[in-house]
Amino acid sequence: MKKIAIAIHGGAGTLLKKNMTPAMEQSYAAALEEALTAGRLVLQNDGDAISAVEEAVKHLEDSPLFNAGKGSVFTSAGTHEMDASIMDGKTLNAGALSMVRGVRNPVSLARMIMEKSGHVFLAGEGAMAFARQMNCMFEPEEYFFDELRFQQWQQVKGTDDVKLDHSALDEKKFGTVGAVALDIEGNIAAATSTGGMTNKKFGRVGDSPMIGAGNYANNLTCAVSCTGSGEFFIRGVVAYDVSCLMEYKGLSLLEAADHVINHRLKKIGGDGGLVAVDANGNIAMPFNTDGMYRASWNANDEKLIAIY
Amino acid sequence: MKKIAIAIHGGAGTLLKKNMTPAMEQSYAAALEEALTAGRLVLQNDGDAISAVEEAVKHLEDSPLFNAGKGSVFTSAGTHEMDASIMDGKTLNAGALSMVRGVRNPVSLARMIMEKSGHVFLAGEGAMAFARQMNCMFEPEEYFFDELRFQQWQQVKGTDDVKLDHSALDEKKFGTVGAVALDIEGNIAAATSTGGMTNKKFGRVGDSPMIGAGNYANNLTCAVSCTGSGEFFIRGVVAYDVSCLMEYKGLSLLEAADHVINHRLKKIGGDGGLVAVDANGNIAMPFNTDGMYRASWNANDEKLIAIY
Repeated sequence: MKKIAIAIHGGAGTLLKKNMTPAMEQSYAAALEEALTAGRLVLQNDGDAISAVEEAVKHLEDSPLFNAGKGSVFTSAGTHEMDASIMDGKTLNAGALSMVRGVRNPVSLARMIMEKSGHVFLAGEGAMAFARQMNCMFEPEEYFFDELRFQQWQQVKGTDDVKLDHSALDEKKFGTVGAVALDIEGNIAAATSTGGMTNKKFGRVGDSPMIGAGNYANNLTCAVSCTGSGEFFIRGVVAYDVSCLMEYKGLSLLEAADHVINHRLKKIGGDGGLVAVDANGNIAMPFNTDGMYRASWNANDEKLIAIY
Repeated sequence: MKKIAIAIHGGAGTLLKKNMTPAMEQSYAAALEEALTAGRLVLQNDGDAISAVEEAVKHLEDSPLFNAGKGSVFTSAGTHEMDASIMDGKTLNAGALSMVRGVRNPVSLARMIMEKSGHVFLAGEGAMAFARQMNCMFEPEEYFFDELRFQQWQQVKGTDDVKLDHSALDEKKFGTVGAVALDIEGNIAAATSTGGMTNKKFGRVGDSPMIGAGNYANNLTCAVSCTGSGEFFIRGVVAYDVSCLMEYKGLSLLEAADHVINHRLKKIGGDGGLVAVDANGNIAMPFNTDGMYRASWNANDEKLIAIY
């Protein structure tokens, strides 16, 4: 029997049990399980890895709990600017976008860019024009309004402060979602999506849409989706680094993922984590923060949902 | 005596001797020599590698011959949108920008982003707002007007054609400039700058501003600046790939650079080349196209200027 596997994340950071209520924990766990199951169902029905990661990330984007899609944070201008990327480990094709507003599911736009634009990376107004040409689903500004995100923005609006995805002052949370999957044909894929940083300005672009930094997939090695302090993930070329340690140094997926997050990333001062899968169905979900919203369903049919 | 070294490029592609006049060859050679000498002078005066690559790239940007800065090609909207990046091999700090208009020297803006923004990558209006705050030098639209670039655009304007940097119909040219350098302290750095593709739309972003794809520097391995079919350089994470082959597989700079350009990039269908230097002053300038505008001044005081 052939193997299938999937892993997802909903961001990493200072997620402390003392700051969570049981109700909050249950909400996050339920949302993670729903996205995991949706992605897993695609794989079970012999769907491909690309479709599975797209489906899982769409569910995470549609949840107001995670900083992506519907739950995106407010920029300094009071808008929501989203970044996303997707990569197919079989073909090494990739699609990515940045600074997009109003698109319901940025991950699906990333896939359209990969499959239909002839390019890898589109940004801003141009990416939105392409989305309209593709009849991508748009939502009005209200769709992206969330009271908690709004309050987070009000706390720092008009200041030079740029917040990651705070829900309490002592909490540092990197709001990004992502998924990696292995399909029945042995192909792997990765997708990542984010609403960026609260009160961000200057058109800051993080690692999420950067192939090699926040997202990467290659059947020969692994599929990786990252979450964390984006600038460090870019400088560390983190997702591709995991792949290179496997391909060039012969490390296993778990060794490579652990080494990158707990040694190389830490050495340059970066916080965060990643989810990764290889063509044998191994799953790694290391993080060097207090917690990472994560869930996996491995090739042995074992399901895990965890925060801390 | 300590070593210094520098290498630069002005783009790669179907550069055939039969399409060039001796006068054209001389113009390109003179412009390359001027930029090379300017960068080398910084190193000779004990300047650091970051300042040397910035200086060399500024000269290439100021020349109308190369597709970057003043010589940038026209977008589908008749504007000039520029991308650039810079990375410091000593600190692994990096700065990058995309979709910037009117900035005279994008490479200097990339350096300001690296040193003063707290971010790595800024894009579009936000990047320009930051540039104004930093008192970055802007130029009026006329500054970027070049008759040849305008004619190239007229040939494809209103069509869906996106041209790389054509000067003849049978010529495929990747217009990007870049520099890598080793300074007297043993630090290395890389910078890359481009005016993109003629008639480009949809806010396409290539590899030039992508750390790990079009530009990378790490004292432990190498500094790399790429030029070529950007989408393939992104998918191949080309610049960091050279670094990983050295760090994880023990290849020399020349072996790693050659393997990436002539095997790995070619395998996925990518055209182009790169310039690279390591902390010992070795220089590699491989390309898998007919030519690459390039120049180097190595640690043994040997100067090379070449096109084919």
